Amino acid sequence: MWALPNFPMVEPGDDLAAMIVESANAAGIIVEDGDLLVIAQKIVSKAENRYVYLNKVDVSDEANRLAAEVGKDPRLVQLILSESKEVVRKRTGVLVVEHRCGYVHANAGIDRSNITSDAKDPRVLLLPENPDQSAARLRLTLRERTGVTLAVIINDSSGRAWRMGTTGIAIGCAGIIPLMDLVGQKDLFGRRLEVTQVAVADELAAAASFLMGQADEATPVILIRGAPYQRSEKGSGSLIRPKGDDLFR
Amino acid sequence: MWALPNFPMVEPGDDLAAMIVESANAAGIIVEDGDLLVIAQKIVSKAENRYVYLNKVDVSDEANRLAAEVGKDPRLVQLILSESKEVVRKRTGVLVVEHRCGYVHANAGIDRSNITSDAKDPRVLLLPENPDQSAARLRLTLRERTGVTLAVIINDSSGRAWRMGTTGIAIGCAGIIPLMDLVGQKDLFGRRLEVTQVAVADELAAAASFLMGQADEATPVILIRGAPYQRSEKGSGSLIRPKGDDLFR
Repeated sequence: MWALPNFPMVEPGDDLAAMIVESANAAGIIVEDGDLLVIAQKIVSKAENRYVYLNKVDVSDEANRLAAEVGKDPRLVQLILSESKEVVRKRTGVLVVEHRCGYVHANAGIDRSNITSDAKDPRVLLLPENPDQSAARLRLTLRERTGVTLAVIINDSSGRAWRMGTTGIAIGCAGIIPLMDLVGQKDLFGRRLEVTQVAVADELAAAASFLMGQADEATPVILIRGAPYQRSEKGSGSLIRPKGDDLFR
Repeated sequence: MWALPNFPMVEPGDDLAAMIVESANAAGIIVEDGDLLVIAQKIVSKAENRYVYLNKVDVSDEANRLAAEVGKDPRLVQLILSESKEVVRKRTGVLVVEHRCGYVHANAGIDRSNITSDAKDPRVLLLPENPDQSAARLRLTLRERTGVTLAVIINDSSGRAWRMGTTGIAIGCAGIIPLMDLVGQKDLFGRRLEVTQVAVADELAAAASFLMGQADEATPVILIRGAPYQRSEKGSGSLIRPKGDDLFR
């Protein structure tokens, strides 16, 4: 695993694929077929200009009520609601929702850190419109530019039930089967495995998240070589547990 | 990250530290100060002889009732209850409990796969009695044998709320701060970070879990070099969210 060093600041409209290839090459890393890139959600959102200026948000009555209830900025609450299917849990300072894309996420993944924010006109950063599509586009562009086929995971930090702290999860992917199904495989003694599905994309997202760190935006791209993943053209949807099957919703 | 190759089968009473050093050396890997070992729970439990023969389990009325309700072997349910503080969720085929050590875990982490199990006298494998102590002991023994100070994480596969599939988590550790507290740190633009705690031990446990795979017991030990973790003499307790603070219990 390498953290691509000296990755430049990303601005709206930037060509992420070009920046990734340049950063890798500058570090003497030539991407190879099968390499896996884990890319921080934040730089994908920035390149896609998912900024919203809080002063331009029209706040609904519902958002005003909820903001008063949980003690958050009503404009931020409006954006969280707009980005979500439903509120899963709320408490003072806490708003856990089901994001449009299905993740259960605090604040719909809307980020206020590491964002240049003028005090008079603060802005926040939403998740990419469609992280799977973002990953697929990046993968295609990288294939055009480099001639090799990579897998791409877009990761984000996410809180969990039961356990303290965030870990990296895959909010989008391309070129990798994110949920490995071991159904029917036998273990070393021929017994059918009880654990049948492994969220490999989340495990790789977590590994990359560790290397990225949290307060240092200089390494938002991690290259993983030699990871024995299975290739696929599908996205990350299989990682979402259907609400009806979820004992913890 | 290296998966120590050709790791031998582990039997009760085996000297895991010796097996780790031998496997590493046989692969040409000399452990260095600061290296981090992630060790599969299963081999720690085996070395500590945490096997229980199901035919020797005395089943309580409570376990019999619960077994009928969820459709599991009453002897297994008895062991799950004995290893747990409380049942968190139950449904046919599913028993999610709070383990003695605080993890919310399906079946209290009791494992029936990859265990040589005579059909007439089946046995299962419990989690280590105290995984933090197991990690600390291994770390001390490895320090005595090699002269270098390592960190040790014991990992297990765990299901999650909201998301499909298991990921590796740290059920015990020694020599590493498992939950990195970023409170007070500033991001690149001097703004206080909103995300303040990162479960780095879980991220490293997940990374190792990916390399270990699920159906192949030949690589239950992963060595990680160059991981920028913070050293500590504390265990993994800070990763457990107190029940009263958990919105999903």
